Amino acid sequence: MRYVRYGQPGAEKPGVLDAAGRVRDLSGVVADLSGAVLGDLPQVDPETLPLVDGNPRLGVPVAGIGKLVCIGLNYRDHAEEAGMAIPVEPIVFMKALSALSGPNDPVSIPRNSLKSDWEVELGVVIGKHAKYVKAEDALDYVAGYTIVNDVSERAFQTERGGQWTKGKSCDTFGPVGPWLVSRDDVADPQNLSLELDLNGQKAQRGNTSSMIFTVAQIIEHLSEMMSLHPGDVIATGTPPGVGMGMKPPLFLKAGDVMELRIEGLGSQRQEVQQDA
Amino acid sequence: MRYVRYGQPGAEKPGVLDAAGRVRDLSGVVADLSGAVLGDLPQVDPETLPLVDGNPRLGVPVAGIGKLVCIGLNYRDHAEEAGMAIPVEPIVFMKALSALSGPNDPVSIPRNSLKSDWEVELGVVIGKHAKYVKAEDALDYVAGYTIVNDVSERAFQTERGGQWTKGKSCDTFGPVGPWLVSRDDVADPQNLSLELDLNGQKAQRGNTSSMIFTVAQIIEHLSEMMSLHPGDVIATGTPPGVGMGMKPPLFLKAGDVMELRIEGLGSQRQEVQQDA
Repeated sequence: MRYVRYGQPGAEKPGVLDAAGRVRDLSGVVADLSGAVLGDLPQVDPETLPLVDGNPRLGVPVAGIGKLVCIGLNYRDHAEEAGMAIPVEPIVFMKALSALSGPNDPVSIPRNSLKSDWEVELGVVIGKHAKYVKAEDALDYVAGYTIVNDVSERAFQTERGGQWTKGKSCDTFGPVGPWLVSRDDVADPQNLSLELDLNGQKAQRGNTSSMIFTVAQIIEHLSEMMSLHPGDVIATGTPPGVGMGMKPPLFLKAGDVMELRIEGLGSQRQEVQQDA
Repeated sequence: MRYVRYGQPGAEKPGVLDAAGRVRDLSGVVADLSGAVLGDLPQVDPETLPLVDGNPRLGVPVAGIGKLVCIGLNYRDHAEEAGMAIPVEPIVFMKALSALSGPNDPVSIPRNSLKSDWEVELGVVIGKHAKYVKAEDALDYVAGYTIVNDVSERAFQTERGGQWTKGKSCDTFGPVGPWLVSRDDVADPQNLSLELDLNGQKAQRGNTSSMIFTVAQIIEHLSEMMSLHPGDVIATGTPPGVGMGMKPPLFLKAGDVMELRIEGLGSQRQEVQQDA
């Protein structure tokens, strides 16, 4: 099933896509797609639900996200393009929840930014409390999958004090969606193609089969240090093709358009704006 | 005013201390001490409110914290004891919200941890939306102040992949409280003594006058990169006396007791446990 949240920012309602890809209103079945329902997502025939008129805005497909944990340099080729060593264990950082944004909402470059960049990533949505979980059991704790654009200001990230938080947490730097695709509809999370185009030109191309640490290994690793709760989202790293890896480097500017796709998980499209 | 949240974990109610330091029930005035009320904290004579019986557990004094932003190495003497360079701008990292814990709840050392350490810090609670705020106006965006123990696993923090997140985000590693003291009751946030004792012995001693970056400067800096929302908490760095700075280094073990005090903001007391 493909779950969505639709409507204006802050007033999204839960929905589900029908076979034709139209949004159906799920608000009569669950109040929202929050942690409380992610462990047991509603099973309902979408065709029996009210059709939502028009082409509503989509929001982040999970309500009340508790943390947005990101894995750095998790694709071998991306670590190489970034000029950084292949990590021996997952690199973990956080994105502020205030950076969350709908999958097709504009991305705003902050004042004093010169190096805003893109990162298409497989997003993993946790469905039940995970602590000290082993990799062989880890996927049982997943509610489903989505797309994350881990937008990153490279100067803020790497030239401003050593921790990456500053470059990762700007407002609108966390588009998530369009859908939460339930786990049972993703045959193999380690065999999904990922793509990001900038202004219609190929930028990133990759496949989750190239991850250094698998989704299951990441969950095991994180859960050794912190509880993962229903509604937490993990962004699992990005394949090659980011702007800082180009020769010469290329960064976002107002008017640019990013389009992201992951096999089976839909697409995102963001226009870039510049904060006044 | 000194605001509290009291009751069992997950079921806390808002309260306020009366002149005798007893908890009064504020739940008839506001539903909770969440972002929605932090910009305009309820002004009420505590003596007119119902007295809460007994000595209830205190929770985190802010509900629905949106992010817990931390500043690293913000006291000159602490940077020196850590053997790290004096930062030229604030070092910023995040603590997972799942690490939040009541001010007197036990702190649990995770499995495979050998280097858990303490950090008493002035916590700043944001009262209204701050973006591109100047330092001279920044304190207008503060609802009040509290104590944060930025408990830190030093091996996870510095020997496990370069980002500090892992060592900062373990469950129970974020005691906050006991009180949210409204801004008008803190004459000068840059002149508060901070103390932490371990097992009754002096560990940390400092004063917020020794901060490298003031509260106002930190808010200006953060708000250049991300929105600060009502209910966000900033932990502003720790003075000297942490375990890793001792010769030889000293780390937490089960049975230890940490006691933290900040002038005018009350005290915390945590017993240390070891995850099985």
